[in-house]
Amino acid sequence: MLDAVLQSIDSHLEDSLARLFEFLRIPSISAQSAHAADCRRAVEWARDTLAAMGFDARISETAGLPGVIAQYHEAGPSAPHVLFYGHYDVQPADPLNLWHSDPFDPKLIDGPRGKKIVARGAVDDKGQVVSFFEACRAHLAVTGTLPVRLTILLEGEEECGSPSLIELLTNERENLASDFVLVADTNMWNFATPAITATLRGLAAAELTITGPARDLHSGLYGGIAQNPINALTKILGQLHGEDGKIQIPGFYDGIAPIPEALQSSWAKLGFSSAEFLGEVGLAHPAGEAKESPLAQLWARPTADINGIFGGYQGEGAKTVIPSTATAKLTFRLVPGQNPAKILENFKTFVTSRLPPDAKASFKSMGAAPGFAVALDAPFMRAAQSALAAEFGQPPALVGSGGSIPVVEIFKTQLGLDTLLAGFGLDDDCIHSPNEKFELACFHRGMRAQARLLAAFAEK
Amino acid sequence: MLDAVLQSIDSHLEDSLARLFEFLRIPSISAQSAHAADCRRAVEWARDTLAAMGFDARISETAGLPGVIAQYHEAGPSAPHVLFYGHYDVQPADPLNLWHSDPFDPKLIDGPRGKKIVARGAVDDKGQVVSFFEACRAHLAVTGTLPVRLTILLEGEEECGSPSLIELLTNERENLASDFVLVADTNMWNFATPAITATLRGLAAAELTITGPARDLHSGLYGGIAQNPINALTKILGQLHGEDGKIQIPGFYDGIAPIPEALQSSWAKLGFSSAEFLGEVGLAHPAGEAKESPLAQLWARPTADINGIFGGYQGEGAKTVIPSTATAKLTFRLVPGQNPAKILENFKTFVTSRLPPDAKASFKSMGAAPGFAVALDAPFMRAAQSALAAEFGQPPALVGSGGSIPVVEIFKTQLGLDTLLAGFGLDDDCIHSPNEKFELACFHRGMRAQARLLAAFAEK
Repeated sequence: MLDAVLQSIDSHLEDSLARLFEFLRIPSISAQSAHAADCRRAVEWARDTLAAMGFDARISETAGLPGVIAQYHEAGPSAPHVLFYGHYDVQPADPLNLWHSDPFDPKLIDGPRGKKIVARGAVDDKGQVVSFFEACRAHLAVTGTLPVRLTILLEGEEECGSPSLIELLTNERENLASDFVLVADTNMWNFATPAITATLRGLAAAELTITGPARDLHSGLYGGIAQNPINALTKILGQLHGEDGKIQIPGFYDGIAPIPEALQSSWAKLGFSSAEFLGEVGLAHPAGEAKESPLAQLWARPTADINGIFGGYQGEGAKTVIPSTATAKLTFRLVPGQNPAKILENFKTFVTSRLPPDAKASFKSMGAAPGFAVALDAPFMRAAQSALAAEFGQPPALVGSGGSIPVVEIFKTQLGLDTLLAGFGLDDDCIHSPNEKFELACFHRGMRAQARLLAAFAEK
Repeated sequence: MLDAVLQSIDSHLEDSLARLFEFLRIPSISAQSAHAADCRRAVEWARDTLAAMGFDARISETAGLPGVIAQYHEAGPSAPHVLFYGHYDVQPADPLNLWHSDPFDPKLIDGPRGKKIVARGAVDDKGQVVSFFEACRAHLAVTGTLPVRLTILLEGEEECGSPSLIELLTNERENLASDFVLVADTNMWNFATPAITATLRGLAAAELTITGPARDLHSGLYGGIAQNPINALTKILGQLHGEDGKIQIPGFYDGIAPIPEALQSSWAKLGFSSAEFLGEVGLAHPAGEAKESPLAQLWARPTADINGIFGGYQGEGAKTVIPSTATAKLTFRLVPGQNPAKILENFKTFVTSRLPPDAKASFKSMGAAPGFAVALDAPFMRAAQSALAAEFGQPPALVGSGGSIPVVEIFKTQLGLDTLLAGFGLDDDCIHSPNEKFELACFHRGMRAQARLLAAFAEK
């Protein structure tokens, strides 16, 4: 039966592409209010497309741009309930002069890996969304139904920070109650190797201001006797990392579990070259904990980075000033097991316990989200691994993400759902940049892989 | 004879004040080209005043504002040759709305210490210059001559950085060949206690930029594996000071002699309260070398202060960036014996020996001047101490200056001359600020003290 579904996808590739092109021609730029009507056209296009396929589809209004909710529940209560998330909005196309074709007039262009679809939204996220729609269409065409209960949620503000997503989830809470979320907004490991994002680092952000004298002082008249807040700030923050790269905040590593064997062995097979990865940005040496592998430093170990620092004179030449204050902004990337609130609390302790006389510290917390790991033995994870392996002839890379992915946190905190991140983009797809593209082969294999995933989720 | 000179000063106080007021009425603001004609009037006033007293006085042109050179050499070749330095220009008077009277219409106003002269330039430097002129006038009136060979040099650009002073010294080199320089542009220790500035700290200034990645990076995608230049900068600069406050740059203290006994005992008598000094700027604890007294930390020990630091994101909230570069500006206050060039070289070594992999350091030097100490046993120093003691009934405080005084360095490097800094201002005179004042008593005692100094210099 699955073979027939895949065959249907193969034989209707032109039609699928035509539907994707329709969607890509709508400049649904959520950041620009001039495109509000286009966003409305895009949400209607998605609703109508799904309704025509037999979904119970409707637009769900928010204070911002609306979402689409579409359900197909014929598989019945014993079938798993999958929540597919995607977004119909796209990034602005600027700078337009760097595009080789009209960003909203999609083209099929020859490239080194065969034909590629070039347009704003080609892969992020319209191409990936349509891949999933077409996988559903093939199942429906061949079997007359879907193997799982399926709810599709599209939002229209992902590219501007999802300001209405929580409202949408709240309004639709009952309709979204499901077993897990499927998100196809990520990349493969490379053109040959699919990927599932198995770990995501969280984040805790803090701003620290050290105050010394009540006003800026002349460094000649006061230098030596007056506490200099920049001196104090560098002295304290200079102790953040030990010589082995370990972060010296008390309790910083509390609660972190060892990296699962399955992840470690998957990473070992990836052929990741830190020299190549770092070489692209002018670096050569992994700078994290000396004892950890480069991929562990990137994906599975926490960090302490000073993202900004300022105090005193920043103009040309010299100014003999001892400033009143100095400030640093820091983010801690967190891994599962670390408690963001506790990390921020311990950072305060780290700083205040090192304050010299006459230096005062004030803190601002600027967001905190825990790290996240998908349970590798969850049924949907096992199903996804085998489905992707079947399509690509090799198991998916179980990758990590060094940065947070807000929707994953939001689904976890709002709906209590884990997320399966399996997408079919490539690192060189130029998302958010001119000449965004989606390899035709990736679109095609994406549809086939999504069809296999739907089938695999149903096998228990 | 000296008594008669002093008596003459006392009995002509009104006339002296009238001449000072004439000078103060000329708004000779060197920073503002609109006042170029006023500066010309001021230099002519000074030349004419000195010429009328019998000096060989003339204007000495420069590419900028002119100087005055005036000589009275009747004392003959065996008498000491004193070079008096002052300036006829003043700071701008802004903000005008904070003045209680017209800054260029001098007033005698009652204050807690008796009458005070209020005007821009009242003490800096017209009041102090006229004090010296009037001391000469009294000597000339009573004795028909001066006890020393005297050359007076006034410049017109002190308030804007003395850009033409070196040109002036070069043009007049032969006329300025003398035994030492007398400068009356400084303050007394307090209303009752005169002061001689015996030590001046020098300065070495450097800018350090640490470069990590070739471009700004996302702290999620690269955090942990990429060298963060702000982390590196704080780690390195955080090691500048040891726990005892000592500066950790190799060889930093090389060549520094112990503080002379005479200075230490003078400082011990000053009743300096670091609590009071620091309390005015919201501090309480001397922050320098733990083993040194507060005054030694201020005047006689070198410093390392970060005057400015910047890198990465400085706006509101958080930005998850690992920047490409981070920069700090530093000044080292230096004391006699330290070699500024060597200090900057050793700072480079300090930084480069601590650079982590993938971090590169670049340096800019931004000025270097050695510390300076007047030989306490020089004849002019001994003479000055006894003359000031005679006038004030107590020996002058032998103070230090934590900051550099550019003209002292310039006289030393250009003419090889030591400088005697003995002025009659007070710390609360509001120089460079609205309502600048000179206590009438300070003006009066300044004239008497200058008359005594001239006499004392002649005694060998």
